[in-house]
Amino acid sequence: MTTHKHPHDLPARLAQALAPWRHAPVWHVGFSGGLDSTVLLHALADLARRETLPPINAIHVHHGLQAAADAWPAHCQQVCDALGVSLQVMAVQVKAEASLEQAARDARYAAFTATLKPDEVLLTAQHQDDQAETLLFRLLRGAGLRGLAAMPVSRALGEGSLLRPLLGISRADLEAYGREHQLAWIEDPSNNDVQFSRNYLRNQVMPALTSRWPQAAANLARTAAHLDEAQQLLNELAEQDLIAARSDSLLPWVAIPSLALAPLVDLSAARQRNALRHWLAPLTRLPDSDHWRGWEDLRDAGQDARPVWRLADGELHRAEGRIWWLSGDFLQPLKAVSAWGNLARPLRLPGNGQLCIEGNIPAGSFEVRYRQGGEILHLPGRGHRDLKRLLNERGIPLFVRGRLPLLYRNGQLLAVANLPELNADAHGDWRLQWQAPTNDQSLS
Amino acid sequence: MTTHKHPHDLPARLAQALAPWRHAPVWHVGFSGGLDSTVLLHALADLARRETLPPINAIHVHHGLQAAADAWPAHCQQVCDALGVSLQVMAVQVKAEASLEQAARDARYAAFTATLKPDEVLLTAQHQDDQAETLLFRLLRGAGLRGLAAMPVSRALGEGSLLRPLLGISRADLEAYGREHQLAWIEDPSNNDVQFSRNYLRNQVMPALTSRWPQAAANLARTAAHLDEAQQLLNELAEQDLIAARSDSLLPWVAIPSLALAPLVDLSAARQRNALRHWLAPLTRLPDSDHWRGWEDLRDAGQDARPVWRLADGELHRAEGRIWWLSGDFLQPLKAVSAWGNLARPLRLPGNGQLCIEGNIPAGSFEVRYRQGGEILHLPGRGHRDLKRLLNERGIPLFVRGRLPLLYRNGQLLAVANLPELNADAHGDWRLQWQAPTNDQSLS
Repeated sequence: MTTHKHPHDLPARLAQALAPWRHAPVWHVGFSGGLDSTVLLHALADLARRETLPPINAIHVHHGLQAAADAWPAHCQQVCDALGVSLQVMAVQVKAEASLEQAARDARYAAFTATLKPDEVLLTAQHQDDQAETLLFRLLRGAGLRGLAAMPVSRALGEGSLLRPLLGISRADLEAYGREHQLAWIEDPSNNDVQFSRNYLRNQVMPALTSRWPQAAANLARTAAHLDEAQQLLNELAEQDLIAARSDSLLPWVAIPSLALAPLVDLSAARQRNALRHWLAPLTRLPDSDHWRGWEDLRDAGQDARPVWRLADGELHRAEGRIWWLSGDFLQPLKAVSAWGNLARPLRLPGNGQLCIEGNIPAGSFEVRYRQGGEILHLPGRGHRDLKRLLNERGIPLFVRGRLPLLYRNGQLLAVANLPELNADAHGDWRLQWQAPTNDQSLS
Repeated sequence: MTTHKHPHDLPARLAQALAPWRHAPVWHVGFSGGLDSTVLLHALADLARRETLPPINAIHVHHGLQAAADAWPAHCQQVCDALGVSLQVMAVQVKAEASLEQAARDARYAAFTATLKPDEVLLTAQHQDDQAETLLFRLLRGAGLRGLAAMPVSRALGEGSLLRPLLGISRADLEAYGREHQLAWIEDPSNNDVQFSRNYLRNQVMPALTSRWPQAAANLARTAAHLDEAQQLLNELAEQDLIAARSDSLLPWVAIPSLALAPLVDLSAARQRNALRHWLAPLTRLPDSDHWRGWEDLRDAGQDARPVWRLADGELHRAEGRIWWLSGDFLQPLKAVSAWGNLARPLRLPGNGQLCIEGNIPAGSFEVRYRQGGEILHLPGRGHRDLKRLLNERGIPLFVRGRLPLLYRNGQLLAVANLPELNADAHGDWRLQWQAPTNDQSLS
């Protein structure tokens, strides 16, 4: 993993690492003006003079966080001009959050993501020491395997890919390259500010480690790669354990993520957590170990209970033998009544998808309401029925009932969406179709 | 995981942690005389005054490594006398190895293992900070998940169990307990010697971490526990992946560990490594990531090749569609000829198990030899046959052929062990049975 090669090799090593991406339409390069990205850009420009590469475009993100940084775009422009590379300067807004570093990183990646067109790649200059420091940083926060796994060499980003071709190269080698080519780079004054955790690790902790274990950074990076492989295996185990739980729900029109509970409960507790972490990872930030009690409560609550496990970005509900992931619109209160002037046209329900009539449009004055409790539906030939009981009989989960559109005609409950047998119109030949919100829609 | 409880709670917390071990015949306590084990012993003695516990016996291991330590047994005796606890002092020989700490640890645990009678337990005083330092230490050596997983709270040791009831308690809490009870403990002068890696971590690195992340040790210990859970899951995956490979060999009398190759090759490379690591872990120290090339070479060598992968404590051979674990006797050269005076008695073959005759003992002058090449066997009704071809036809792996006992009568090859059809005695009614060495035997 470590490199003892002469830094001269850098363009050659880059060429090798980037061979699979030779046909990308553009190589964007994240260019802060600091040592790492200056070396990356220089080595790429060097390579481009000798080989045919995609056009190279540097992107400098201006965070607007410190006065010193206002001079950096001009510096970056000079460097790019000298290298014959185009430069794009993007100003971003960094949210004032607890971790300024994290907020700056989020803003930067959002800008990169928005920039990438299909198949374009973004090259960033993280190196072996960054990998090592990231591992150490996450360890100190008590992360689990998923949090400790290595930064990957490549991953999808927006419509393109993010590549980190320097991950196997030490900071010392980058410095040697920079000095040898007499590169000018920006020393970010915040890099020496120990108030930032990463800088504290870099400047206070890593030197203490490296003085006794010269290979500390390389070894930490190697461990991170091992842990990444272990995480991939746990993902495979999770996929296998989830197969049975991914059975179809009896309510296919509730198009939110859900799992059958019984196959999960058959697994050991550790495998339950592994499978759920894997399933939840794309949906929400994951709970730390102390909060997995919430899962046990959800799983073990009595049949009649309506347990809910609240997570950072949504809620898991248990109903009808399944667990259901609710987020976004599904957790927002609804406007109680919407008039529906023209049933021939779909009705968009604020925060609750949309409604339409399939079949012959009935006549009358219509509005859409949500359940309050106590509703009675007059079913042709079956008399007055309690709506609550009707929904109970059909196994409609509680979190759906409150959002299930009810069609009223002239103030009388006429039909319940998506349950065609719950229609009071004896002579009608139509169905009330509701397209429920998905978590995806609700995020936009 | 962290404890903010008053150190007064310590005996109560111990009582809880040790509840499952109340019926052990003895509680041995590893007692160095240092802070940690002095607190453990004191808290246990305190508990024993209030509750009925198994008899408590302190064990002090004298490593003979430094002059200062010669005074410690007397100190330990004083402490034990005051607490009303028996003390056993064991002197051990520490091998002069690269890592003196590791050698001292090995000698200590060997002494503990030898001491434990069935169902007895040994309590040791490792605490949360030890757990954290161990994780950090192994990270700095680039360990994989298996090496990073937490020290367990309990595990088998010899015929009994090793327990670490203080793993959830910080060093600071142990110190507070020690001061509150005005305990006297030994400060091991080597604890301040930064030449020892662990002490360097404890004294140079951990303070730098804790000054910025007060929960660093607790968080590292939590991560270690997460990684332990992840490792357990990978063990489950490995067990599952090994089921097909554990099929019976066609040579059941070669009683060494072996796996069928084909089911392994069907797995992804990462799952192959995981399964093999799990299978190899009880057999040998594991290769680090750079040396797994050896596995690929073993796996991918041509059909006619006789590939061998050399590991720290033995060798993997590939033969007859299987991989075979050879160690101990299986790797030692053999004495070429043994006379066998009385065939009615089993013959012990130095380094190669033993041999006996089943059935009617034949008459003549006998000796046992090993294959040199060029042997001819005269089979009744089939003429003279080349031994090499006969063994080839029967799929006898190369590493078995050289150890397969050949019985000679009056200087003529008469029979090949365990292959009853390879017997030149037309009139005999007997079989030559060889009990091959196992890796287990060979370790003793």
